[in-house]
Amino acid sequence: MENENMSAAPLLSKSNPVFCCYLFWSSLLILKMLFMALLTARQRIKTKSFANPEDLRVGRCTDVRFNDPNVERVRRAHRNDLENVLPFLLMSLAYVACSPHPLTAKMLIRIGASARLLHTIVYAVLPLPQPTRAICFFITFGIVCFEAIYVIICSIKYI
Amino acid sequence: MENENMSAAPLLSKSNPVFCCYLFWSSLLILKMLFMALLTARQRIKTKSFANPEDLRVGRCTDVRFNDPNVERVRRAHRNDLENVLPFLLMSLAYVACSPHPLTAKMLIRIGASARLLHTIVYAVLPLPQPTRAICFFITFGIVCFEAIYVIICSIKYI
Amino acid sequence: MENENMSAAPLLSKSNPVFCCYLFWSSLLILKMLFMALLTARQRIKTKSFANPEDLRVGRCTDVRFNDPNVERVRRAHRNDLENVLPFLLMSLAYVACSPHPLTAKMLIRIGASARLLHTIVYAVLPLPQPTRAICFFITFGIVCFEAIYVIICSIKYI
Repeated sequence: MENENMSAAPLLSKSNPVFCCYLFWSSLLILKMLFMALLTARQRIKTKSFANPEDLRVGRCTDVRFNDPNVERVRRAHRNDLENVLPFLLMSLAYVACSPHPLTAKMLIRIGASARLLHTIVYAVLPLPQPTRAICFFITFGIVCFEAIYVIICSIKYI
Repeated sequence: MENENMSAAPLLSKSNPVFCCYLFWSSLLILKMLFMALLTARQRIKTKSFANPEDLRVGRCTDVRFNDPNVERVRRAHRNDLENVLPFLLMSLAYVACSPHPLTAKMLIRIGASARLLHTIVYAVLPLPQPTRAICFFITFGIVCFEAIYVIICSIKYI
Repeated sequence: MENENMSAAPLLSKSNPVFCCYLFWSSLLILKMLFMALLTARQRIKTKSFANPEDLRVGRCTDVRFNDPNVERVRRAHRNDLENVLPFLLMSLAYVACSPHPLTAKMLIRIGASARLLHTIVYAVLPLPQPTRAICFFITFGIVCFEAIYVIICSIKYI
């Protein structure tokens, strides 16, 4: 499972195409996560639901407001990203460092990242009936599990 | 504090046993974090507390429901992971890159990760009276603080 | 945009001053994030707002309590950190791996990290009127966007 020939060159560097692929998709996912904050702000202004007294002047409101369903939906989607995108990014980095098969690794990174981009669309932008969201969720979920088990097998003797 | 002899070989690579130890335990922690999502889903189905209208069909419910204590407990445990496991993983990676004493580093990673695994058990699976959870929490907390201070001392001249 | 001469030496190692600068500021930000947990605990004890039945004995309370505005403010600031500091740390790591111009990279890391430190102060410690918090937020936000676009351009051929 380990490719000893490759471990001479640093795997976490620009000379490794798998790491470059990881760089591209992780940047895209992080941009998307930042975009969630703007989406929340837009919903807060539209529904005049501000959580802090000092923010009220922005929307010319008189009182803080929680539990607006549109704001909460975007916030749930954002939290779901924290719970899944950040582990995906950290896990894929560890996985790339274990010199996996290059094509497999690149496909897993591409599919896992694309599924999360789609997940945001069907959750926060254009809510679709289930199981669309569940499928997107479990694609990345399964990929992270696979990567974790691969890395655990690679590094079990260093427990 | 810095081991200049070791800095020639890349520290963030499979040739460094400390990094391999980090890979093993971080994969285990990420697997555990993913498992929290399944635990939440199980509690949502058991207590019929779904947060999105499009999820209601799954549990044959008629209305969204928040604030179920069993669901909220798992969600608090999950959020606690986001607040502590992710910083632990990022901090330990930076710490490994500073070429710490190998045995110390491996022990800190092992103990810090094990404490978080235990934290989840006593918080979300089998709630135990305090201070069990607080002890687990502060073991990892202290280790991350130690690692952060070590790295800050190592890199202070690059401020 | 790529500095091929530098890609021979590992960029994610102590021999790269930009990476050392990243190590310093990321450790400081992680320490600050841990400090948020203590700030939450202090507010919980002060306002006797505990979220778990097993924690009640600590504050000699008889019932769990949610929605205390002081606790919720610190928790919102903490969540804002999860949503912004962790992406900043992961994105800056990827950015450093792309061999950016050293001085630019160091300035971006310093300014981005300092803005987050300030953000916590004006949000959770000493709430100031807007747009103080918004300015701090958008400085780091803009830096992460810039880093992401830089990395995407560097690695687009590995899509």
